This record gives sequence, structure tokens and C-alpha cells, in this order.
Amino acid sequence: MKRRDVIKKGLIGAGSVAAAATISAPAIASDRIEISMVSTWPRDFPGLGTGAQRFAQRLSDMTDGRITVKYFAAGERVGAFDVFDEVASGNAQMYHGADYYFTGKHPGFGYFTAVPFGLTASEFTAWMRFAGGQELYDKLSADFGLKGITCGNTGVQMGGWFRKEMRSAADFKGLKMRMPGLGGSVLAKLGASPVSLPGGQIYENLISGAIDATEWVGPWNDEIMKFYEAAKFYYYPGYHEPGAALSVQMNKKWWDGLSKADQTIIEAAAAMETDVMFAEFNAKNGAALERLVNQQGVKLRNFSDDTYDAFGEAAEEVFEDVQDHSPLAKEIHDSMVKARKEIGGWNNISDSAYVQQRNRVLGL
Amino acid sequence: MKRRDVIKKGLIGAGSVAAAATISAPAIASDRIEISMVSTWPRDFPGLGTGAQRFAQRLSDMTDGRITVKYFAAGERVGAFDVFDEVASGNAQMYHGADYYFTGKHPGFGYFTAVPFGLTASEFTAWMRFAGGQELYDKLSADFGLKGITCGNTGVQMGGWFRKEMRSAADFKGLKMRMPGLGGSVLAKLGASPVSLPGGQIYENLISGAIDATEWVGPWNDEIMKFYEAAKFYYYPGYHEPGAALSVQMNKKWWDGLSKADQTIIEAAAAMETDVMFAEFNAKNGAALERLVNQQGVKLRNFSDDTYDAFGEAAEEVFEDVQDHSPLAKEIHDSMVKARKEIGGWNNISDSAYVQQRNRVLGL
Repeated sequence: MKRRDVIKKGLIGAGSVAAAATISAPAIASDRIEISMVSTWPRDFPGLGTGAQRFAQRLSDMTDGRITVKYFAAGERVGAFDVFDEVASGNAQMYHGADYYFTGKHPGFGYFTAVPFGLTASEFTAWMRFAGGQELYDKLSADFGLKGITCGNTGVQMGGWFRKEMRSAADFKGLKMRMPGLGGSVLAKLGASPVSLPGGQIYENLISGAIDATEWVGPWNDEIMKFYEAAKFYYYPGYHEPGAALSVQMNKKWWDGLSKADQTIIEAAAAMETDVMFAEFNAKNGAALERLVNQQGVKLRNFSDDTYDAFGEAAEEVFEDVQDHSPLAKEIHDSMVKARKEIGGWNNISDSAYVQQRNRVLGL
Repeated sequence: MKRRDVIKKGLIGAGSVAAAATISAPAIASDRIEISMVSTWPRDFPGLGTGAQRFAQRLSDMTDGRITVKYFAAGERVGAFDVFDEVASGNAQMYHGADYYFTGKHPGFGYFTAVPFGLTASEFTAWMRFAGGQELYDKLSADFGLKGITCGNTGVQMGGWFRKEMRSAADFKGLKMRMPGLGGSVLAKLGASPVSLPGGQIYENLISGAIDATEWVGPWNDEIMKFYEAAKFYYYPGYHEPGAALSVQMNKKWWDGLSKADQTIIEAAAAMETDVMFAEFNAKNGAALERLVNQQGVKLRNFSDDTYDAFGEAAEEVFEDVQDHSPLAKEIHDSMVKARKEIGGWNNISDSAYVQQRNRVLGL
């Protein structure tokens, strides 16, 4: 029903109080809600930014405009890394972003985006919904006045762009590589110098030689960044972000004041975005990778078993540091490890086993 | 806002037509919608039935009861396999079920649940949303007066329960095995006798020896069925249903009459169920498999490469038959094959590659 019709119906019913109260199917209504939403993404940034914007639009579509979202891309109201405080303080109602940007607030936030040797997109959702993940996310977020839900996933990220072949872990010694978060900490354990740079500054640093290597997301996003102009070797699989989940974090007091119906609308809109965004990355990465290899001369390489073993050992050391931070950090880590064993182990028997056999038989 | 408040607000505004039209934040309302929903699942059947019921409840939760769903499990209003006609005719507004039950109407429907050597859950969603799948589903469904959307996924199903080890494709000769749909047709090409039985009749047929083997879903669902009492060898990976998507099919005329907002609510509720149901299977299958192996003496085995090659060849023959059915059947098949190559090929580089390395390094 259009808003105009609603008002019209209101007018028709205005003559009789008694009639209005006893009509068999009265119109149901709720309050208007205006949301200021900040984000960590440039406007229209493919996948991440467009996904956040699509989520905002969906809230309005689902409610025929009763919920309206004023969306601010990174820098349009506050900087990318200021969104956390903007929402915690109540200046804005929600943000869309990657919560591992806020490991400085608490290292536990890293686990709700991605950690090295962590969960794939489907494993992550299983952990969040049925193995204790959401409860821990709620506990952690509430400590900062927030309520967080998952809203999008990039899938497994690529291992990065390098100027030369990376034959063993020794090749990482002295390497200046752009990689934020715990993935960067793993690199440091191997003797590399991890650098954290926002997306817009990576290309110039790679071209100028200020950094030797970088990771970003995957073929579809990386192609746009033109890293292949400076580094031809493109490695997989990335150990550092095996499925980067994006978050909608909301001011908890605001969230608690919403009706059950509006909370469910927001949850469903976010869950749909997880489905849609992950699908978009999966649908577009393959074709982009083919273009990179065939049109840009990119050389696709996989990390050797030895290199991966070294990543694994370094990751264990990094996790020791994380667990020392606080009981909650340890609790989150332990819960992820348990899910990785049970849900990740099942992957050997299911998706992973099937895809290997299917692709072998069909030569894919 | 509660319904009572709405009515109260209506009363307050009733005195002045002009005021009602100019108030800055008027209540928004829409029509009540009552939905009769039939399904192909027994009431409360874990995963499939509970997922359908959760979706129905969500529609009501999201609208504070403005949309109500009267849910009928299989047999409560019509039989499982009669839901298609019940909705196409307009007797009910929607059904939840597996559309490969309706390949008798058109073989194309099989592709929107699962086909042998087809797409995994995440590949399927990518195909549906970004590689032409939904458009073809719309075209096919509209021919029967329906509008279909995906609502749930079981993930990769297990290859089945057998009384003896299945060392090669020759062991399938003469085997009486419960397996519906195109998976069963593949078995027939190998000289087996596929049997189609509803869930409630499998156990007795397996115990009595009327069938030699069966597949059902995966460890969580299969454990409940107690197949291990009659057949100890449990094989993976299943070639026949690499990610069984469930559907909500709606009467198209009814769907077309809904507002954009209500259509979006239904789409988001269904997308959330896809996310939730797949997560539930992933979260519960691993632990169930461990119980089956450790407590019930189940012997977990994987099909050999040679056996899988034979499955693959037989599947190609079955697909020839499907494509001969009609131009639309061929169009759907070709679209799936293209997605399998592009999106499924990307899986080699992403989830599959990562999970293999991670699980190798961590010994999972």
C-alpha cells in the first residue's frame, strides 16, 4: 500500500471512533525511524561499499520508507576509522564496516571479521548462529555500548601481489608488505615489515617502491586497483582472511529501544546482504582472475606447503599474544578454535571433498 | 509500536482531517496479509521442516503480525508432492519444499534444488543472484503460474549408507538403492536399481533388505533415521546433491499483487533462512558424524577416484537426456554449466584451496 492510500484510509475512518476500533482488518502501523549510518568504505566502492548501500536501501524498501537511512561513506561525515566512536557515542545509529579495524579497542573484534587460519564464510556463519559466536560478539560489543550483527562477506581473500616469486618463508624476510591486522602480525613473525595503509594509498606506494608487496581483497576488487602494473605474481590461498565478514554495529541503547519487529527487519536485511555480497564476490572473482591472467599477464601462484607451514607456526605465536590480552579475548579465541575443529573438520567431508572430486573429474 | 497504540493514535487524530494529513511523522500502515503455506516436510522435521516453520514465523515477526502464515506440514492439508498444484491453482499462496520433486512437471526444476556434479551452496547462490539463475527460475516457474525464491540449503549431502564396501563402480551393478531424482538416474546408468521412497519408509525397507543401500541428507539428519542399524559403511562425498537448495514457491498472481515492500520482506526472510539453515547443517553435521563413528561403529569411507570418474561419465549421459527435453531445459543446463566452470573454478583458488591447506597444517 502506498503512503497516500494510508492517509486516505485514515481520512475515511476519521468520522467514527467506534468503527475505527472494531473494523475487522485495521491497518497496522509503526513509528518512523530515521537512521544515520556511517561506513568504513568509499562511496560506491564495489562489493563492500555498494553492499553497505544496498543494505541501507533494503531497510527502506522493506518498510515502504518508514525506516529511512541517511548513509555516509567514509569521510563524508567521519573518517573510516572513526565510525566506531561515532556510533558508540550515539551520534550515529549504525555503521557498516570491518570490525578488525578496531582491534585497538579490543583484539576480540578481529575474530568477527577474519583471523589468520580462521573460518571460511560458511564456517563463520555456522559459528555465529549455532556455536556461540553471536553470544560472544554481543558480550564484546556491549562492553562498548554496541550491538553487532554480520552483514556481508568477501569470501577467501587472495594471498597478495608480489614483485618476485615467493618460494619459501625465507623470501618474506625483510619484505615490506601492506597487510593490516593479525595477518600483518604473522608476517612480522617471519621477519617481514607489515604496513597498514588505507586502500586509496596502496597503489602509489607499490608503484614508488615504498612497499614491495600488498594484499587487498580478491581478483574482482584487486583488478580495479591495478596492482598488476607494479607486481605480477599473484598468490593464493590467502591465510590471513579466509572469509572477511563485514558488520553492522549499532548503538546498543538505540537497538534496545526498537520493537522486536524492527529488530527482525534489520537482522533479515543484514542476513540477506551476507548472502548477496558473498554471492557477488564468488560470481565476479573467477572472471576477473581470468582477465588478470590472460589480459594483464598476471602470474598466478600458490604458496608451497612449506611456506604455509611457516605461516601456521607464526599464526600460533600471534594467537598466544591475543589470548594474553584478557579473559574475554581468550574465550573468543577458544570458541573460534572449537568451531574450526568441528565445523572446519566437517568441511573435509563436505564442500572441500566434493569440489576437489568434481573439479578433478570435470577438469575445472 | 503496539497495535493498541496505533489505534489510540488514530483516535487522537480523528477530530481533524487537515491535521492528520499534515502531521510531520504520520504512522505508516499496510494491509493485513494472510498466507496459507503448505510444505513437503513432516512437522518439526529437523533442519528442513523447522527451517520452513522458522521462515513462516519470521514473516510474522518482521511485521508485528500484519502478515500471518498458516503453516501446513506434509499431509496436514495436502500430501508432500501435491504442494505444487495447491499453490499453482491458488488454493494456497506458497509452499516450502525441494523443487526437484517436480521434475515430472519439467526437468528444469531439478536445477533449482541440486543436480549431480552441480553447484555447492555458495556457488548456487552466486549463480542465482549474479549469473542468470534467478531469471531462468522465474521463466520456468512463470510457465506454471509460480514465482520461486531460494529459502534454505542443506549443503553437500553424504554419498549414502551401504552394507558393504563400495570399491569400484562395478559394485553398484544390481544394487537396489534409494536415491530420487537425477542422482538415481546416474545410478541406473551404472546398472543399479534406483528406488524413490519418502523419508518415512526408508528405514523399514533397509532393515528388511528390500533395498541394499540408501542416501538421505547428512550426518545430523541421517543419525535420527538410524540407518546405521542396517548399513555400516557411510560414504562421501555425495555426487548427487552437492548443496540441496530449498524453495519457497508462490502463486504468481498473488505475488504480483503484493507491494514492493512486502515482496522485499519475503525475499529478505527467505535469504535469512538460507543463511540460517545452511549454518545449522554445517554446525551440527560434524558433531553428529563423530557420534556415528565413535558411538555407533559407523565406518566412514570416501569414494575412490575411479568410482567418481564413473559417476561423472554417467552424469553426462543423464544430462544429455535432460537437454533433449526442451529448449528451456537446455538453456537452464547450459547456464548451470557456465556457472560451474566460472564460479566453481574460482573455488579451486579460494575456499577449497584454503581449507585444504589450513586443515593440513592444523591436522584437522
